[in-house]
Amino acid sequence: MTSLSGRSGDGRDQRNLGVDYVIHFKVPPKERAEAEAGFVRLVQALTNVGLTTEVRNGDNDSLLIFVKIASQDLLSQQIYRARLQDWLHGVRISGPETEASRAFKDEPVTEAERLRLVHDLITRPINEGGAGVGEASQGSKYVASVFPLHDQPFNKAWIQKWSKKYILEQADIDEIRNKFGEKVAFYFAFLRSYLRFLIFPSALGFAAWLLLGQFSYFYALGCGLWSVVFFEYWKQREVDLAIQWGVRGVSSIEHQRPEFKWEFEAEDAVTGEPRKIYPFAKRLQTQLLQIPFAFACVLVLGGLVVLCNSLEIFINEVYDGPFKQYLAFLPTVLLVIFTPAFSSVLMGAANVLTERENYETTDAHNAALIQKQFVLNFMTSYMALLFTAFVYIPFGEMLVPLLEFWKKTAQAVTFSDKSLPTQHFQINPQRISSQMFYFTVTAQIVNFATEVIVPYVTHKAVVKAKQFHSKGTAHAQDHAEEAEFLERVRNECELEAYDVTGDYREMVMQYGYLSLFSVAWPLAASCFFINNWVELRSDALKIAISCKRPIPWRSDSIGTWLTALGFLSWLGSITSSAIVYLCSNTRNGSGGAASRLTAWGGLLSVLLAEHFYLLVQLAVRYVMKKLESPGLQQERKERYLMKKRLLQENLGKYGLERSWAPGVETTDKITRETLEEEARQSSIRRQGTPEEMFWQRQRGMDDTILIGRKLIEQGAADDKTNWGKPSPSPRA
Amino acid sequence: MTSLSGRSGDGRDQRNLGVDYVIHFKVPPKERAEAEAGFVRLVQALTNVGLTTEVRNGDNDSLLIFVKIASQDLLSQQIYRARLQDWLHGVRISGPETEASRAFKDEPVTEAERLRLVHDLITRPINEGGAGVGEASQGSKYVASVFPLHDQPFNKAWIQKWSKKYILEQADIDEIRNKFGEKVAFYFAFLRSYLRFLIFPSALGFAAWLLLGQFSYFYALGCGLWSVVFFEYWKQREVDLAIQWGVRGVSSIEHQRPEFKWEFEAEDAVTGEPRKIYPFAKRLQTQLLQIPFAFACVLVLGGLVVLCNSLEIFINEVYDGPFKQYLAFLPTVLLVIFTPAFSSVLMGAANVLTERENYETTDAHNAALIQKQFVLNFMTSYMALLFTAFVYIPFGEMLVPLLEFWKKTAQAVTFSDKSLPTQHFQINPQRISSQMFYFTVTAQIVNFATEVIVPYVTHKAVVKAKQFHSKGTAHAQDHAEEAEFLERVRNECELEAYDVTGDYREMVMQYGYLSLFSVAWPLAASCFFINNWVELRSDALKIAISCKRPIPWRSDSIGTWLTALGFLSWLGSITSSAIVYLCSNTRNGSGGAASRLTAWGGLLSVLLAEHFYLLVQLAVRYVMKKLESPGLQQERKERYLMKKRLLQENLGKYGLERSWAPGVETTDKITRETLEEEARQSSIRRQGTPEEMFWQRQRGMDDTILIGRKLIEQGAADDKTNWGKPSPSPRA
Repeated sequence: MTSLSGRSGDGRDQRNLGVDYVIHFKVPPKERAEAEAGFVRLVQALTNVGLTTEVRNGDNDSLLIFVKIASQDLLSQQIYRARLQDWLHGVRISGPETEASRAFKDEPVTEAERLRLVHDLITRPINEGGAGVGEASQGSKYVASVFPLHDQPFNKAWIQKWSKKYILEQADIDEIRNKFGEKVAFYFAFLRSYLRFLIFPSALGFAAWLLLGQFSYFYALGCGLWSVVFFEYWKQREVDLAIQWGVRGVSSIEHQRPEFKWEFEAEDAVTGEPRKIYPFAKRLQTQLLQIPFAFACVLVLGGLVVLCNSLEIFINEVYDGPFKQYLAFLPTVLLVIFTPAFSSVLMGAANVLTERENYETTDAHNAALIQKQFVLNFMTSYMALLFTAFVYIPFGEMLVPLLEFWKKTAQAVTFSDKSLPTQHFQINPQRISSQMFYFTVTAQIVNFATEVIVPYVTHKAVVKAKQFHSKGTAHAQDHAEEAEFLERVRNECELEAYDVTGDYREMVMQYGYLSLFSVAWPLAASCFFINNWVELRSDALKIAISCKRPIPWRSDSIGTWLTALGFLSWLGSITSSAIVYLCSNTRNGSGGAASRLTAWGGLLSVLLAEHFYLLVQLAVRYVMKKLESPGLQQERKERYLMKKRLLQENLGKYGLERSWAPGVETTDKITRETLEEEARQSSIRRQGTPEEMFWQRQRGMDDTILIGRKLIEQGAADDKTNWGKPSPSPRA
Repeated sequence: MTSLSGRSGDGRDQRNLGVDYVIHFKVPPKERAEAEAGFVRLVQALTNVGLTTEVRNGDNDSLLIFVKIASQDLLSQQIYRARLQDWLHGVRISGPETEASRAFKDEPVTEAERLRLVHDLITRPINEGGAGVGEASQGSKYVASVFPLHDQPFNKAWIQKWSKKYILEQADIDEIRNKFGEKVAFYFAFLRSYLRFLIFPSALGFAAWLLLGQFSYFYALGCGLWSVVFFEYWKQREVDLAIQWGVRGVSSIEHQRPEFKWEFEAEDAVTGEPRKIYPFAKRLQTQLLQIPFAFACVLVLGGLVVLCNSLEIFINEVYDGPFKQYLAFLPTVLLVIFTPAFSSVLMGAANVLTERENYETTDAHNAALIQKQFVLNFMTSYMALLFTAFVYIPFGEMLVPLLEFWKKTAQAVTFSDKSLPTQHFQINPQRISSQMFYFTVTAQIVNFATEVIVPYVTHKAVVKAKQFHSKGTAHAQDHAEEAEFLERVRNECELEAYDVTGDYREMVMQYGYLSLFSVAWPLAASCFFINNWVELRSDALKIAISCKRPIPWRSDSIGTWLTALGFLSWLGSITSSAIVYLCSNTRNGSGGAASRLTAWGGLLSVLLAEHFYLLVQLAVRYVMKKLESPGLQQERKERYLMKKRLLQENLGKYGLERSWAPGVETTDKITRETLEEEARQSSIRRQGTPEEMFWQRQRGMDDTILIGRKLIEQGAADDKTNWGKPSPSPRA
């Protein structure tokens, strides 16, 4: 039972009293009757699919419904079926072990697997054999959340272990997989690989910073090479991990989104089952709206950045009047106010757009949403640096009209008719470094604070406040032996759900800084290295203490983020070379660099860098393909062995393995029976088909050899054209 | 038997007297003894593996050994085993039909399959169960060739049918596959697809030629788009065909090359069998020599082209002295002499290099060789046009020093001290059109002649001459009823082996002209369309009458040519845009165009065109991926159904399909047994684990609902913070 339940036998899980999931059920005071009806239906549905329930009071007009699977039999049945389904859809290679008990022995059930299947049982639609929690008919609007409970002792041990370890191992990631599912584990695996790979650019960047300074072609080259290798490595590693964790291909068998609207049903081309279809062409039409959406993002957010940056430049480097030290904050304030405002509007648009694209599966929906968000994030993250690198530093003079605009605006605002005190505008080449410093150090620290410390403190404060408020209320009336447990559950109810997307986004955006701009400040990689070492642990901490325990979803890759990484790597090859070309002249602070820059030089360096990048990519891919990944090899091997076993089981009985004697009559007896044979042969010659006659002339190996020899000898005897007449048979 | 033998039942094959293969065995007059020994060993080996032999006289000191498989049993065994092997290696999806007879009924044996397996039996090494023909120990140096006999009636019908049909269908290609194997069939399938796709650029080119003239951006764009779509289409089509023909993945299970030298043996990671290994790193080292090889090709052949072209320009457009009309042929003569000479030297180097790269399989070896040849062909085919398009037309003036060089050389050669009569050098923008005309029309016609007419005429002449010479020799002494047949076999002995690589090369090079240069002469596509309509038929004719019948090898794609096509498409996007930019100004014949050209303009147009190409490629791939190819769908379906069948066969008995009752005790009896239960519960409460106690409070759905309702009602009653104390059970 130990392996089947997915609980370790040391009783740790006892602290959760065997609860698989908690359903946080809201009872709004104004809709009590409907909520009550919904509650009854919910409990009935849960019971019908074989789940045991308990109900307790929650905080703020809510109930806590505790759910566990009723019997071990049911659980093992569910798991066995799920594994069969996986095999049927090509996720698992080895066929079904026909004896369930042996199957569980060969491959023990992890906690993540158990929780995933119970969650599936809870949320699957009723007509597909689930409890339908989340369906509108099941009072979904009262279900605030469905979540598993944290395994506190595990979490404590986990955080302690990780905070003491300098280097994380694959086993640590596997542990996460077993506990929180593959989706979360993939994030940590990615972060771990990324951290390890960062060593190279860190060292290179540090050396370049010491010896070559900013804007070195050498560093740009090294960094580009690194990004290709890292990208290709991860692409392979991802597949390896998916195979190792037995999830390769799961992304193709995701369940349908409940919100998916279908237009007609058609037979699935593969399984032959009826399938709900939304026409591809129709979706493509909606998808084309992404183009104006991207333009809007570029225009709105790009415009904002350009305006604020030029204002900042004006205030810092041209304006010389009163309140300069206060006015210097104005652009930042504007950015801080307007960026989130605009972003949230655009984000809303992205959501609406994605909703209208009407994807079949949650994965596809999320991928489409992430793509749109990526455009947004790209603008807010990189636009300022792009502006500095490609406009301000090389072509600062071009900004003069914009600065004039600000000057006039300032005069208009202050109603002064005398000219504002200004100083001569001069390009400050250190601007890009300070910006990079901000993005790589300041922003990461701020981010760490908002991500881990703030939620933690807030949560603690809320808990304290609640404890203070709820003195003497329902909570005090819990059964004494459950009180502590229920308290903990109520606290977990208040926590945010963990969203791995946000963490991915952070890392991918960081990768973008590295790939696109680190040539302007080679120390970036070192900073990222330190940051990520902490990040790896702080993300663990975040899951453990400031989020609900995540539902252990499966996943076979980091998904659409891989595309984003590839895009940033490629773009990095272009921006890095362009930055080096454009900015290296201004490094020494000499103005008027633009005069020495030629358009063709810039284009050529971009062209060369990009093609170098593509060439290296080809080469790396070639080598990677040759060095077959251990995962794929493993997969092929399993498949081969499985087939071989099948062959041995099924084949012996049909006697195909028996050895056979070559079916050719040799002619050893022929000499004894020459006369009869001769007679037979001549009769054949008269009556047989030409084919029979042809093949009867030399009846066996010995005949052929004899005649062949004779032919060769005749050739030797009269070496002219008249080879001797071949006799029809050696007996003639 | 009909289906098993792979022979159609109408007796057509009778003309070949059931012969599967002919081994043409040379007996050099000076090595008669060795040859005889080799002959004996050969016949013994053939007999040992179950083949029947007959021997007859051949032409010019040679023997003809006729081979057929001895028994139907052996044949069916071989086929069944081969199919099992295919399944084991993942080429076939459906598992082995355990009854051989049913297997052959479900999937009849084609002539190609039978011949392939017999050939395998003949050539497989002796220690792997074959006759080892081709091994050095088997007197391989006397074996001139091993080939199947042409099916004359089929060939006649085939050529007649094709010459009458305007449009070929898939069925026609399938027929080729069944007769000549997948390798040949893939060529015809490719040519057919290419021909059909050519309609678009033909029409576009014709329209552009009428309305826009040369060097139109519009045509370049259309042609680029077309090449992307065609390339992606074929990539998918290739997979579809491979699945349809049941050969997907065969390229990975090719046999080892006999010449392969291994360094050590290691366990195969997949099959676990011992495998001969040549270290990858060592091969990579040798492969790096390809880079200097490519440089040598570019230098030697490129230099030759530049020299001859500039000489030609000098003679045609500058020189105005005596013998101009004769001298005009000089550059062509030089090219005709030196190109083959240099090519054959470089080709030798390519062969040596490929040999040293020491590939494991014939496929890999050929692919590597083709790659190197592609560099050679690229230079000889396109260099002249590249020179005209990128040097002569836009920067003609730059050639003046080179022309001066020729002038001086000419003066030196003629020993004249007075200046040669010259005219002012002027760029002739029509040069590129006339070159394109040469390559698309003249060269194709010449090629048709050398490929089909010349070999046919030669062969006929040789046959006639031989008939004349050999009057009264061995041939006249054949058995009367075999004479005609033997005559035919002797003639087929003289034919060339069919090499599909040459045909592919021709088509790929043609595709290159279209993709790279057709913007300079938009009629090219139309010419190619006409040419290929003929080519499709003339290639069939070539196989049928001027080549030995090809051994029906399998193949799952057009192989490395796909890479070449992709490369040419990509390069086409660059050259087309560059040609348009560089040459469109000179269209009207005005000299000095270079002054109006800027480097950044050229680079920008190249950059834009290439990125447009890459973007379109991404988009087309996205759409193609969404519209899953019928082949892949078919494959997935087969795999799914196969598994489902397996599941149904194996599963029922273990009772996993039985329906289950939810394992939760409902509490309908509890009201009757309240007292006992209460007692039991309290005893549990004292002794049970916290977990047991927790889950015992509400024992079943009804309890949970009851208590939940009570909690909700209490909340309604006193809507402040003090929710009523929940009773431990409804009975309390």
